[in-house]
Amino acid sequence: MTPTLDLVADVGESYGAYTLGDDNALLDVLTSANVACGFHAGDPQVMDRTVAACQLRGVAVGAHPSFPDRTGFGRRPMELTETEIRLDVMYQLGALSAFTAAHGIKLQHITPHGSLGNLVVTRADYARAVIDAATAVNPDIIFLAQEGELAALARRRGLPVAIFGIADRNYEDDGTLVSRSKDNAVLHDPVLIAARTVKMVTEGVIESIHGKAIPIQCDSVLLHGDNPESIQVALKTREALLQAGVRLAPVAEILHNKVS
Amino acid sequence: MTPTLDLVADVGESYGAYTLGDDNALLDVLTSANVACGFHAGDPQVMDRTVAACQLRGVAVGAHPSFPDRTGFGRRPMELTETEIRLDVMYQLGALSAFTAAHGIKLQHITPHGSLGNLVVTRADYARAVIDAATAVNPDIIFLAQEGELAALARRRGLPVAIFGIADRNYEDDGTLVSRSKDNAVLHDPVLIAARTVKMVTEGVIESIHGKAIPIQCDSVLLHGDNPESIQVALKTREALLQAGVRLAPVAEILHNKVS
Amino acid sequence: MTPTLDLVADVGESYGAYTLGDDNALLDVLTSANVACGFHAGDPQVMDRTVAACQLRGVAVGAHPSFPDRTGFGRRPMELTETEIRLDVMYQLGALSAFTAAHGIKLQHITPHGSLGNLVVTRADYARAVIDAATAVNPDIIFLAQEGELAALARRRGLPVAIFGIADRNYEDDGTLVSRSKDNAVLHDPVLIAARTVKMVTEGVIESIHGKAIPIQCDSVLLHGDNPESIQVALKTREALLQAGVRLAPVAEILHNKVS
Amino acid sequence: MTPTLDLVADVGESYGAYTLGDDNALLDVLTSANVACGFHAGDPQVMDRTVAACQLRGVAVGAHPSFPDRTGFGRRPMELTETEIRLDVMYQLGALSAFTAAHGIKLQHITPHGSLGNLVVTRADYARAVIDAATAVNPDIIFLAQEGELAALARRRGLPVAIFGIADRNYEDDGTLVSRSKDNAVLHDPVLIAARTVKMVTEGVIESIHGKAIPIQCDSVLLHGDNPESIQVALKTREALLQAGVRLAPVAEILHNKVS
Repeated sequence: MTPTLDLVADVGESYGAYTLGDDNALLDVLTSANVACGFHAGDPQVMDRTVAACQLRGVAVGAHPSFPDRTGFGRRPMELTETEIRLDVMYQLGALSAFTAAHGIKLQHITPHGSLGNLVVTRADYARAVIDAATAVNPDIIFLAQEGELAALARRRGLPVAIFGIADRNYEDDGTLVSRSKDNAVLHDPVLIAARTVKMVTEGVIESIHGKAIPIQCDSVLLHGDNPESIQVALKTREALLQAGVRLAPVAEILHNKVS
Repeated sequence: MTPTLDLVADVGESYGAYTLGDDNALLDVLTSANVACGFHAGDPQVMDRTVAACQLRGVAVGAHPSFPDRTGFGRRPMELTETEIRLDVMYQLGALSAFTAAHGIKLQHITPHGSLGNLVVTRADYARAVIDAATAVNPDIIFLAQEGELAALARRRGLPVAIFGIADRNYEDDGTLVSRSKDNAVLHDPVLIAARTVKMVTEGVIESIHGKAIPIQCDSVLLHGDNPESIQVALKTREALLQAGVRLAPVAEILHNKVS
Repeated sequence: MTPTLDLVADVGESYGAYTLGDDNALLDVLTSANVACGFHAGDPQVMDRTVAACQLRGVAVGAHPSFPDRTGFGRRPMELTETEIRLDVMYQLGALSAFTAAHGIKLQHITPHGSLGNLVVTRADYARAVIDAATAVNPDIIFLAQEGELAALARRRGLPVAIFGIADRNYEDDGTLVSRSKDNAVLHDPVLIAARTVKMVTEGVIESIHGKAIPIQCDSVLLHGDNPESIQVALKTREALLQAGVRLAPVAEILHNKVS
Repeated sequence: MTPTLDLVADVGESYGAYTLGDDNALLDVLTSANVACGFHAGDPQVMDRTVAACQLRGVAVGAHPSFPDRTGFGRRPMELTETEIRLDVMYQLGALSAFTAAHGIKLQHITPHGSLGNLVVTRADYARAVIDAATAVNPDIIFLAQEGELAALARRRGLPVAIFGIADRNYEDDGTLVSRSKDNAVLHDPVLIAARTVKMVTEGVIESIHGKAIPIQCDSVLLHGDNPESIQVALKTREALLQAGVRLAPVAEILHNKVS
């Protein structure tokens, strides 16, 4: 059976007069996109043109809700109640849904951004808030997550879950990411990153900083697009995957095929 | 045939630690509600509890989008492009739709707030922006408006339009409202306002400041709820209408009956 | 020697169309005021009229900077870098200083609001950020604080510190406040609160929930003004203090007299 | 007497995760800087590092207040009351003053940004609001403006006024700028722009699109820095001015020498 993978990245993070990344170039590489919803980045104009650009290319759209923190780009931890998070996420999901509806497509997935995205890995209340919000608005939505509280709780509820892997970060032997505070946290070599991605999907392992093979199962790989270099990484990774016979498809299709 | 009227008011205008008006008391009187969408007032928590309070009472929910101006409560004119208005309105409509969907009800109508609400009466570009936004997200939505550009354009496109009247303001002989800059712009006597409302719906006229009978056709009457006095006006108006044999119903039902 | 006390409360927390509390009534009771700076509450119009109202009454003005969180009223913990807090506080101090300068008065003190106010009690980095910000803008400013990191660090640096006490909250035997999650956290009886305040300043003790006398030294007492009841508490407290022969004065005067 | 000129540009317009322009390269060319104050662009961190960069280079700092419109970058006209504008400007001036004070320098000038900057040319109420705000906070501040209501009113009040010219835009024969809606509104050739600037300061004229010599008197020339090309223009202009024997100095020094 042909291995299949989704390629996803954060897009739609420009705002007003500010442009962040080269979304069009990045979207040419992706099969799914995490679209900012106006709380950490994006605004109605950016959201509309981002969804239009996704629709044009057949890239599946996902919601990328955040803490309400534009100045901090959603990267700063906030202590909110479960209700606050649930309703903030509902608001953002609804807002993005207006644009997907207007462009005749469906919202495929949700993946929380930044600090909220980190916290749903370990905090059950935040994970529950995101799940309750998403299912209230869109019962079919896929939860695109790292392994952790969000993925586990969604599975327990019988909801569709897709796991994303990260190939441009180094891993400790225990499978966790090397902390960003360390020099070797992030990889930059396009060829190396592309090779790690191929190995991840074809062999189900990624190599730790000490050379240990860490088993990893993922439906999607998270790419980056904030600088020219990262667009090169994305292109190289896509090319290497195709050369290795990996089929690229949005996570909705991958989950659908798993089930059937 | 029994005359039927919708009673509508602006609700959900609290924000964070700030409470504005007594929405629950007001909703007990209304058949429809204009719900703030977070740009001039409201926030996800306020929106959720407002939609819940509407759903509980069978009050139909409408969107009340605004210019992005929380500090000015959406009352300050802004010069935006047609595209900016269209996409800002889509964003707000989508956000509110998340809460109506979660509470199992449909969005009945849209009526722009404050300065935007004033400008769609006279500006074709702003009117078109609101209509394009609403139909892109929700093709069945009713435009609840005063007579003017928005109502005229929506009718030309064959879209459902409901007109709201105002009974607690004085009118000039030419049918325009007496300017708020004048002392006698606003009426305060609950009995008088109630009587004017009854006359408006049963006889199709409202009396000007000089006693002239001005013909007026409306499906809805806009009440206010920002102070204890206005709740009394609303209660008295509802009672007077029922006593006069007027049936109260949301505009969707009124329009539906007109057609059939 | 006549015991002297400062009476302080949070004011200027209205915003746009929203009014919070009856600041004028409250300012008639106070000798100092914590004025919101636009991050959790307040806006340029509210700040200007609040400073004017303070100036008119001879109430000393203090800055009440907050996390950037209007929706959460500055009550939600945020994880910011020390630099972020320092510069956010500088911005707010500068903004408020424009209004004190325009009204011909000086900024007397600074006391962080809400969640930031709680965190400077225990976190050295947040305390240092506030102190560095304040001294960079205004080297003479008084730090009005509870005992904790902020007060300790300011003292170590030889900066003027005034301690505020709280009389309308219950205390545990160890001198900490009874958690707000408990029913008996807050006192409501004006006579009781007034009596506790008098005892605090004349005898230097406050009684815990189990009747234990807890030693307390404070230059100021924090009152509240968010509801009609709290204005009554403030009035009653002021009256009781005056009857007990306590002199009321802003903290700047109290510190000045201590030194000389 | 050696002709002297100020070179000024808008800086500090980055925000949060977003970088706009290459401020350090631009500041190497300037003698004065218009620093954003957080309403259309900038934030406390950007303001602090911008003021530090100015201080390091001896570039004089001016305030660049705006309408409260971050999403529209302050470019969208808003209808505010004179009081609202006055207090919004005071707030921004105060905030920026915290950073100049912390870095040991004085605020040299004020020049309103974007749509507010355009409107003070023609609207007396907006001009008065800016002047009242600035003098309330800083009686010595210089008004850096185009000819128009703001400049005229400031002169009538005996306040220091400096006029800035624009060399990278085409002029109509009547001395007004060619509208941005026309193709030839903006010039791009560094050599041409530099030559026009030199002629403006040494001969007091600028050439219109039809070759007419338009008399122009300015103390400062506004440069741009939003793209790599504009940095080249700025460098070339500075070089050409120095070669032509023009001395470069902040407007405060120029005005001081005029008087003495």
